[in-house]
Amino acid sequence: MYSDGRGRPRLERSRRPGRSAREEILDAAAELFTAQGYARTSTRQIAEAVGIRQASLYHHFGTKDDILDALLWGTIDDPLRLAGELLTEDGPAAPLLHALVVFDVGQLCTGRWNLGALYLLPELRTPRFQPFRLRRGELRDRYAALARRVIAESAGPDDAYDLPFRLVESVINRRSDGEGRLADQPWIIAEAALRTLGFAGDFAALRTLTGQRLRLTDKVHV
Amino acid sequence: MYSDGRGRPRLERSRRPGRSAREEILDAAAELFTAQGYARTSTRQIAEAVGIRQASLYHHFGTKDDILDALLWGTIDDPLRLAGELLTEDGPAAPLLHALVVFDVGQLCTGRWNLGALYLLPELRTPRFQPFRLRRGELRDRYAALARRVIAESAGPDDAYDLPFRLVESVINRRSDGEGRLADQPWIIAEAALRTLGFAGDFAALRTLTGQRLRLTDKVHV
Repeated sequence: MYSDGRGRPRLERSRRPGRSAREEILDAAAELFTAQGYARTSTRQIAEAVGIRQASLYHHFGTKDDILDALLWGTIDDPLRLAGELLTEDGPAAPLLHALVVFDVGQLCTGRWNLGALYLLPELRTPRFQPFRLRRGELRDRYAALARRVIAESAGPDDAYDLPFRLVESVINRRSDGEGRLADQPWIIAEAALRTLGFAGDFAALRTLTGQRLRLTDKVHV
Repeated sequence: MYSDGRGRPRLERSRRPGRSAREEILDAAAELFTAQGYARTSTRQIAEAVGIRQASLYHHFGTKDDILDALLWGTIDDPLRLAGELLTEDGPAAPLLHALVVFDVGQLCTGRWNLGALYLLPELRTPRFQPFRLRRGELRDRYAALARRVIAESAGPDDAYDLPFRLVESVINRRSDGEGRLADQPWIIAEAALRTLGFAGDFAALRTLTGQRLRLTDKVHV
C-alpha cells in the first residue's frame, strides 16, 4: 500500500507521473478528457484511473469542472509569465515575440496530453470558466502588444496583430491530426509568426538568441 | 399542419432555414452540437428542435454519428472542389492559393454555426469517421501542393507548406472566442498565408484578382 501523504491508503500504486495525488488526478483527467471527451468522463472514472477512492478525489477537487479549470490554467500560466517579462524589455520586439512563440509552442507540443483541444468545449463558455477566459484573453493581448511593436518596426500589415497567437494555437489542431514531427514546430511557427507581421530580418540570428534566452532562464527544453 | 414532403404531418411549423426536413435536421443538430456539445445531444433533442417525431428523423439519418458526418463533409466539400480546380491551372501559384484561402475562410466564417469546432471531438478519431478524416487530409494536401509552388516561386522556407491550411482553420478558434469582426478575416488570413511562404509581391493586385475570380464563379460572397 502506498500513502498519498494525507495518511489515506491508496487502492493501488499508480504508474502515473506526478509527485502528488493532485498531479496524478490531473494527469488521469487530462488523458480521459482528451481521449473520450469531457462530457463522457465522470469523476468516478478519474478516481479509478488513478487508483484512489472517489471520496479521496474530492479532497483535492470539488467538481469535475474544477479539474478542467486547473488543467486549462496549466496551459497558460507559464507563457503568461514569460510574456509579462518580455513586455518589460526595451529594444527590438522581434526577438521577444520569437522567444515567446518558441516557448509557448514548445509547451503545447510537449505536454503529455493535447490539452489545447479542450479550449473549444462548449462548457468553456459558461460563467464557471470566465476567469480562465479572461486570463487567456490577457495572454492574447500580450501577444498582440508584442506583435504591434513588430509591425511598427517592420512596416507590416496593421491588421495582422492577432495572427501570432492564432498560429501558436494551430499546433493543437496539428497535434490532434497526428501529423508528423512536432519537434520542429516551435521554430517553424515562430518564423511564420514574424513573417505574417512583415518581418524579413535575420531568422538564423533570432534562433540563436532565442536558444540562449530560453536555456539561460531554464524555461523550456527546445 | 405542415407537410415535410413525405406525407407525414409535422408537429409544428419550423422557423429553421432549409428547404427540406433533412436540412432543418442538420441545422438543428449543428446548433445543439456546437452550443451544448456532441455527447450531450440526443437524436430526440434534435427531432424536438426541428419539430418532428424522432421516427421521422430516422428516415433521414440512421444515427447521430451520421448527422455529424454530414455536417463535417459540408465544411470541406466546396473548398475541396475549388482546390482541385485551382491545382489544374498553370501560371503563378500565389493568386491560386490566395483565392482558395479567401473562399475557405469565408465559408468557415459565414456558416450559421461554427462547425469547425467539431474537428477536435474525440469521436472523430474512431473508424466511423475515417472517410471524413481522409478527405480532410486530401484538402490539407491540396493546400500543401499550392503552398509548395508558392514557396518555390518566392524562395521561401521549405518547411512552411502546412501553415496556410493551419491559418485557415485558426478562424475556428477566433470565432469560438467571439472575437471582433469576421468579415475581414478572409483577406487578412490570405495575405498572412502567403507571407508565411515568403511571398512579398503585390497584395492589392491579388485582392482584385481573387475578388474577380470568386464573383465570376459565384462561389462565395466576399
